[in-house]
Amino acid sequence: MADTMKALAILGQGKVGLIEREIPTAGPGEAVVKATAALICTSDVHTVAGLLPVPDGRLLGHESVGVVHEIGAGVTSVQVGDRVAVNAVTPDGTCDNCQAGYTSQCRGALGGYRFTVQKDGNMAEYFHVNDADYNLAPIPEGLSDEAAVYACDMLSTGIIGAENANIPVGGTVAIFAQGAVGLSATIGAKLRGAGLVITVEGIGNRQEMSRRFGADVVIDPSSGNVAEQILELTGGGANSTVEALGNQVTFEAALYATAPGGTLSNVGYHGESGPTLTMPLDAWGLGMAGKKIVTDLCPGGRLRMERLMRLMANGKIDPTPMTTHRMGIDQVEDAFDMMTHKRDGIIKPLITF
Amino acid sequence: MADTMKALAILGQGKVGLIEREIPTAGPGEAVVKATAALICTSDVHTVAGLLPVPDGRLLGHESVGVVHEIGAGVTSVQVGDRVAVNAVTPDGTCDNCQAGYTSQCRGALGGYRFTVQKDGNMAEYFHVNDADYNLAPIPEGLSDEAAVYACDMLSTGIIGAENANIPVGGTVAIFAQGAVGLSATIGAKLRGAGLVITVEGIGNRQEMSRRFGADVVIDPSSGNVAEQILELTGGGANSTVEALGNQVTFEAALYATAPGGTLSNVGYHGESGPTLTMPLDAWGLGMAGKKIVTDLCPGGRLRMERLMRLMANGKIDPTPMTTHRMGIDQVEDAFDMMTHKRDGIIKPLITF
Amino acid sequence: MADTMKALAILGQGKVGLIEREIPTAGPGEAVVKATAALICTSDVHTVAGLLPVPDGRLLGHESVGVVHEIGAGVTSVQVGDRVAVNAVTPDGTCDNCQAGYTSQCRGALGGYRFTVQKDGNMAEYFHVNDADYNLAPIPEGLSDEAAVYACDMLSTGIIGAENANIPVGGTVAIFAQGAVGLSATIGAKLRGAGLVITVEGIGNRQEMSRRFGADVVIDPSSGNVAEQILELTGGGANSTVEALGNQVTFEAALYATAPGGTLSNVGYHGESGPTLTMPLDAWGLGMAGKKIVTDLCPGGRLRMERLMRLMANGKIDPTPMTTHRMGIDQVEDAFDMMTHKRDGIIKPLITF
Amino acid sequence: MADTMKALAILGQGKVGLIEREIPTAGPGEAVVKATAALICTSDVHTVAGLLPVPDGRLLGHESVGVVHEIGAGVTSVQVGDRVAVNAVTPDGTCDNCQAGYTSQCRGALGGYRFTVQKDGNMAEYFHVNDADYNLAPIPEGLSDEAAVYACDMLSTGIIGAENANIPVGGTVAIFAQGAVGLSATIGAKLRGAGLVITVEGIGNRQEMSRRFGADVVIDPSSGNVAEQILELTGGGANSTVEALGNQVTFEAALYATAPGGTLSNVGYHGESGPTLTMPLDAWGLGMAGKKIVTDLCPGGRLRMERLMRLMANGKIDPTPMTTHRMGIDQVEDAFDMMTHKRDGIIKPLITF
Repeated sequence: MADTMKALAILGQGKVGLIEREIPTAGPGEAVVKATAALICTSDVHTVAGLLPVPDGRLLGHESVGVVHEIGAGVTSVQVGDRVAVNAVTPDGTCDNCQAGYTSQCRGALGGYRFTVQKDGNMAEYFHVNDADYNLAPIPEGLSDEAAVYACDMLSTGIIGAENANIPVGGTVAIFAQGAVGLSATIGAKLRGAGLVITVEGIGNRQEMSRRFGADVVIDPSSGNVAEQILELTGGGANSTVEALGNQVTFEAALYATAPGGTLSNVGYHGESGPTLTMPLDAWGLGMAGKKIVTDLCPGGRLRMERLMRLMANGKIDPTPMTTHRMGIDQVEDAFDMMTHKRDGIIKPLITF
Repeated sequence: MADTMKALAILGQGKVGLIEREIPTAGPGEAVVKATAALICTSDVHTVAGLLPVPDGRLLGHESVGVVHEIGAGVTSVQVGDRVAVNAVTPDGTCDNCQAGYTSQCRGALGGYRFTVQKDGNMAEYFHVNDADYNLAPIPEGLSDEAAVYACDMLSTGIIGAENANIPVGGTVAIFAQGAVGLSATIGAKLRGAGLVITVEGIGNRQEMSRRFGADVVIDPSSGNVAEQILELTGGGANSTVEALGNQVTFEAALYATAPGGTLSNVGYHGESGPTLTMPLDAWGLGMAGKKIVTDLCPGGRLRMERLMRLMANGKIDPTPMTTHRMGIDQVEDAFDMMTHKRDGIIKPLITF
Repeated sequence: MADTMKALAILGQGKVGLIEREIPTAGPGEAVVKATAALICTSDVHTVAGLLPVPDGRLLGHESVGVVHEIGAGVTSVQVGDRVAVNAVTPDGTCDNCQAGYTSQCRGALGGYRFTVQKDGNMAEYFHVNDADYNLAPIPEGLSDEAAVYACDMLSTGIIGAENANIPVGGTVAIFAQGAVGLSATIGAKLRGAGLVITVEGIGNRQEMSRRFGADVVIDPSSGNVAEQILELTGGGANSTVEALGNQVTFEAALYATAPGGTLSNVGYHGESGPTLTMPLDAWGLGMAGKKIVTDLCPGGRLRMERLMRLMANGKIDPTPMTTHRMGIDQVEDAFDMMTHKRDGIIKPLITF
Repeated sequence: MADTMKALAILGQGKVGLIEREIPTAGPGEAVVKATAALICTSDVHTVAGLLPVPDGRLLGHESVGVVHEIGAGVTSVQVGDRVAVNAVTPDGTCDNCQAGYTSQCRGALGGYRFTVQKDGNMAEYFHVNDADYNLAPIPEGLSDEAAVYACDMLSTGIIGAENANIPVGGTVAIFAQGAVGLSATIGAKLRGAGLVITVEGIGNRQEMSRRFGADVVIDPSSGNVAEQILELTGGGANSTVEALGNQVTFEAALYATAPGGTLSNVGYHGESGPTLTMPLDAWGLGMAGKKIVTDLCPGGRLRMERLMRLMANGKIDPTPMTTHRMGIDQVEDAFDMMTHKRDGIIKPLITF
């Protein structure tokens, strides 16, 4: 009889549960990792709410690190027993989009995002990793699992948001929403040399953390027209804006707040915006103001993880203050409920095994 | 009594007329050019229709070349008598946007576009040029006025559309609408090394010219779902798309037709789209498919003109087949009427002086 | 007993021979291709002359196309019987350099270059391809083997030389040497929209072909100071230069001929230049003139091949006039000797099987 | 009789002196600034030593800030009495190189560098500024003159060195020499998000300051083969290297230490290297290892200054610990002597007026 493990599954719309499941095995080029730490992502909350078509029983989770438990034939870059992190996005590395550098779009739009969407997720005691040589990144000695697990999605997504925003050294940037991705974009804006970092956030502990991570000015959306305030603070628009929420109001404000010639970088997931997004033509300069709108999903692959973990290992950044709660896998249902209802000032709950 | 000249003016909404006007003079750093050839632009048709707030009596025109008639104090790069071209966009070259390289956004959104919008246009026997050392480009010996005048706006706008689309060498591109800007984008797509150029156009002589300028496939919009056809031809989306019309239908089709990781480059003027543009979230990959939307206005300055004219002088490109009609300044009212009603297969009417 | 095939091997310094060799087999992720057409590359001449440390008996060749003969476990992108081209550079696609986009530097400097250097080359009736899903590109229906085989190295190398040179649309470029790589760079310069293409070449039929492929001016090095002539023609330096030979004289001239702010793109193989290259500090602007020097090896992978073959399939470019000689595999020793001594105006000899 | 001022002049090779000189005046588009603070640059030491052909009596200095004393006709961006900083490089903003974005190469190689080389420098109580609207940057309220004066050259040069090095977020960088430019490159490397910053420096107080500004590892050149140590620390080469000294030994080590596909960014002034620099071909990968060599001179213009001063005004960076000495203009001859002989641990002496 196969060994089993505990794992968090979707059990119907709006319903999750910790279940028993067989431990996965590794085919050629694949690996299985024994989890040591994981984070719950808001996008799983969206998935459970029914935004993505996922069959019942599918495991949740895409932010986990652990120890290599098994490797399949042909895997050469890691060995059983290695501490490893794996990105939320696990591209094959060979398709045309991957060869063009768009690994998050592996084989098609958003195709690199496989956990839960295309196969079982990794909020589980053991999890399967495709294309292991492309996707498994050794965790540097001395770096905690808690830090490493932030590289799986939050840092990778938030920081690419800042990178794509093309912030000039000494330029101005405005970041909309300071959840974990937005806070990571704030870390990223500082990393890229922004001269003025403005963030937009209404929740007290997130405002505080935003300042701690590098925001010079935090605008509370209840304080009036946000775009106007940014235009005022920047003298005509921010060189760069980051939309880290994914809704009509923030997108529109970001577009207004972007300077002519500037860039709006979207990393918010617009799953709840309905079928369309509306772009005010005056905000967009009638399609001629040189404003760029760029989008991305968490970039995948080992190299990305190595670089993000190097930043933490060398003390350049520390995302762990985002961990507001710590729980064992047996409490993961509670943790998921807290994330769903944004209770108790939660930002990220760390799950340990 | 000051000398006078003939010039085309807006005389109220929907009304234009050839009027007498004093010949302008050149202050410090400025120049006056005696026109030899000009083109009428569809954007002037929009302006006359009331899309931009312009006072009655303001001169129209922003695509003219000629001979330097007068230079103001401090102008060093040209002399009276030089044949010169001047871009439709005439930035000051010193504001922050100009220093950042966004010359079309001089001093603010679309601010480099001064003719007609901020001062008299140049469909006139003589016209004024601000910041002459930044904006006047000598016409190479042997290059005709007719060729040179295409560099003022059509080529500069269409080709930047292709440049901004970031077409990979050997990649695929789809260009929506084949008016003069779209045709210039087709010229640009070929110039940047596209491997497959698809254009979308319904008018017969424009389809024919599109093929002549480099289109491999011309899709007639009446033939069914355009985006689907492009997805089919490209195996999942074009690396690059160019929106050269400026309306909801073409923008939306272009967004669907853009591959994950690809770029939609907008050079269409969305003045007639109403206050908003609608972005289907599935076409945009929920803000995560790596699709970039970039926009621009005709890039200004002398260097741009020099490079475009070099391409023509060395026989690399020839836009003059777009000249469907040739008329003197005395027939400019008729020419404007033809442009307004798109009569007689008109693409560009050349006005001579 | 295993089946055997004919193949061209190095048999000691300066010595090559057509030998019998066992047909290779395909392990997991690998493929074997039955060759249909191949070209001989000057770099093999260098290798045979002793510039690279290669064991006797190692097969030569890295420019071959053919038909898939066998695929190993896990290969999904091609099937036996498919017509395929494979780049001279065959990266694994998973190492850090590959993930960073530098596939030619797979696992280390020049590490993507495996044929002959790290394993048998493919001037053979059958040849082995590592990482087949990354490296095999189907040849489009209707594209000849002769055209396709130019994508393996000549076009890929020459065109990346032009791409890396960062030629502005309408800008000026000078390309040093018009062998097959230099001629391909000329094709590339035209593809990227150069406004003035200057080439430097002393051999008559290459000069002629250079003009045919897009050169506006061909400078014969015997005509005096080449750099001075380019400075004169460009009014102070070319925006871009391409060094496609690999020696002190051409490198130095290219550096002088590059405008401040411009780019020198090296694709010449400096194997014969001795241990060092000398950079005149005045040519380099004392390290402050904004001149960039970039280098590259043929970029590998399937996507690159697909794009180059699309350009040929759609009639955008045609490199086949470079084929000056056509011979069967049984004459390959003669062909190699002709390449070695540059006899009979040879540019590229096509070998068929 | 015209008013006079004190100023530091070159009085023959190896000789400088504080002299009396007429206060300059402002022609059209120009300005005169009354100095409040200045720094002495090592490049002036080189100039006095005879490396640049400068006539006796020419004033030294190119790092000064002050208050607008006079503006010429047509200057609109500043008023008399404004506190302003002006870059060491003062381009005209209109020449082709400026329009292409290479302002440091205004009108020709290094042509933006005008102080002392083309006209009087600004180590003077009053100094002249050409193209004032392009070059004068208001100093933000609350920012000290001492901080602002670092933006004139040290920060602008060092940080562009880091920017040009194209450091990936979380990537590795090695910076050679930690004088004021090298230290500024270290500041820049941190600003761009380097994951590991290695610096090379032998002088104790500079090593200490290097760590303070962000170095993770400081290598003392006396400790053995520097390139080998960097290859070891980075696992095969730094993604980026910065040469901030300008000599054969550091350039060569930097080239060896650069990873395949990486970038060597030169901001060292190779005025003392003799007529040539030698490039070892193995370090350069025979011209095919994808290593890029880029160079630059301090980028000029107002926008650059605004951004650098914003970084300081918002507390992102603080270069003032580099000020090792403070003296009045009357002691400037002593200060110059200290810089010449690198006495007393001097890095930068601040001169006040």
